[in-house]
Amino acid sequence: MKIGWIGTGVMGAAMAGHLQAAGHELYIFNRTRSKAERLLRDGAHWCELPAEVSANSEIVFTIVAFPADVEEVYLGETGILSGKGPCKILVDMTTSRPSLAQRIARSAAEQGIYSLDAPVSGGDIGARDGTLAIMVGGDKAAFETVLPLFQLMGKTISYMGGAGAGQHTKMCNQILVAGTMIGTCESLLYAAKAGLDKQSVINIIGKGAASCWSINNLGPRIVRGDYEPGFLVEHFIKDMGIALQEAAAVSLSLPGLALVHQLYLAVQAQGHGRSGTQALMLALKTLNGDNGSNNP
Amino acid sequence: MKIGWIGTGVMGAAMAGHLQAAGHELYIFNRTRSKAERLLRDGAHWCELPAEVSANSEIVFTIVAFPADVEEVYLGETGILSGKGPCKILVDMTTSRPSLAQRIARSAAEQGIYSLDAPVSGGDIGARDGTLAIMVGGDKAAFETVLPLFQLMGKTISYMGGAGAGQHTKMCNQILVAGTMIGTCESLLYAAKAGLDKQSVINIIGKGAASCWSINNLGPRIVRGDYEPGFLVEHFIKDMGIALQEAAAVSLSLPGLALVHQLYLAVQAQGHGRSGTQALMLALKTLNGDNGSNNP
Repeated sequence: MKIGWIGTGVMGAAMAGHLQAAGHELYIFNRTRSKAERLLRDGAHWCELPAEVSANSEIVFTIVAFPADVEEVYLGETGILSGKGPCKILVDMTTSRPSLAQRIARSAAEQGIYSLDAPVSGGDIGARDGTLAIMVGGDKAAFETVLPLFQLMGKTISYMGGAGAGQHTKMCNQILVAGTMIGTCESLLYAAKAGLDKQSVINIIGKGAASCWSINNLGPRIVRGDYEPGFLVEHFIKDMGIALQEAAAVSLSLPGLALVHQLYLAVQAQGHGRSGTQALMLALKTLNGDNGSNNP
Repeated sequence: MKIGWIGTGVMGAAMAGHLQAAGHELYIFNRTRSKAERLLRDGAHWCELPAEVSANSEIVFTIVAFPADVEEVYLGETGILSGKGPCKILVDMTTSRPSLAQRIARSAAEQGIYSLDAPVSGGDIGARDGTLAIMVGGDKAAFETVLPLFQLMGKTISYMGGAGAGQHTKMCNQILVAGTMIGTCESLLYAAKAGLDKQSVINIIGKGAASCWSINNLGPRIVRGDYEPGFLVEHFIKDMGIALQEAAAVSLSLPGLALVHQLYLAVQAQGHGRSGTQALMLALKTLNGDNGSNNP
């Protein structure tokens, strides 16, 4: 099948690679062409504009950075929806605003095109191994058409409802992560202050009623002082910001999420926006007067 | 072995039962005698005072409700340490103040007695099945003496350091639970407002980087409107209060824990102190103007 792909960052390049490996013909656009080189070398066609991608493809996938990029890529002057061609289904896999997903779906529908919102979780490793969780909103029949392609990229694929439902589900995921991250970092900070061996604490509290992915996977990195990104602080701030805005739009107060969002803004202010989300620990340490001179 | 046991609530009765089943001779005290009936029927000896328990036993275990009860049972006029007899090791399995554990250890040491703090996690089910996690602080040799008895009650038994280290580890556990609980409840509240099927959301976000025990075990109870206690709100408030006090004593600011503690005080104020900790959802719903007329 002729498939369009816009956004070939770490995630996008790996995901598109699975479609290419399965024999699909890719039409690609990315802001930085060099990041698409490997796919191009393996036979993908380069396009100069998003509109050129949709003019050549039956289904177009997108995974870019921020909602503003999604808006530009879909609704901009030379965006996907300005292209005339065989394209019948659009799939945005960026984590983006549910309300924007609904707007794109309406605009697409006016041209007889279906649009799905299908954000993922599982990070660069999930993208590379084809084991992502994919949460999908939009037309059910369009979802079923795309399902075999989703199955090349992910392991858990869930249809969640109409346009925006995929993005809303991803917001639920990120709200939960906000809680597990603050719990993980405050717990390990307390452990350090109490003079406990932090890894021994993780070994025991990571098994019972307190257990979570964050303590078991990011906890050991914090213990080692490893703040390399699995998932970027600045992307998590974007996601929490979307969730808070969407919640505010329906007068929903989420005090825990709001607090964690504020603390991550402090992480960013302290220069760690491109670190992994476990860098929340650094902001909590600074808050508590530790400016890195020792390593509790 | 002649073993003393003080505190035969749901947890204590089940745990003492494992020692009795292994052939140990129990000397029991509890504020409410009726709760010890089953152990007494199976051959345990009733004592009128904590001092009588320690006067008859080689090792005394305690698991009561609040730090004030621990203080009374150990240091009160007719407390354990006032009893003269063969008792050589004391083990408090209540979740209590690390600083109190240290004080009891010092008082016991003056009489040549070892004292361990050994709080547990795993709840009533873990107590019944003998699968508790037990976090132990105090003298290492005393720990090794008691270890075979701990193994009758628990599955994961960890020596964490000197007096108070067991309690500090339990605090780390509860700080983490505070995070997973606020994440779980806010996530499901958002899901409801967004019109998503909450169980479908749990099914997908409970598997990846957001996954935690709370969403997978308490999430479905929230979806069913089941607020029966696995772990009581009022006990969790006690635990968080201890953690906040201990943290404040070393000038440690834990903003996430402080917020969740406040929200649980609201849960209690709304009459749910004897509900399970998943009742945090009820306070968040009330905060958002839902007084139970509908069930998002």
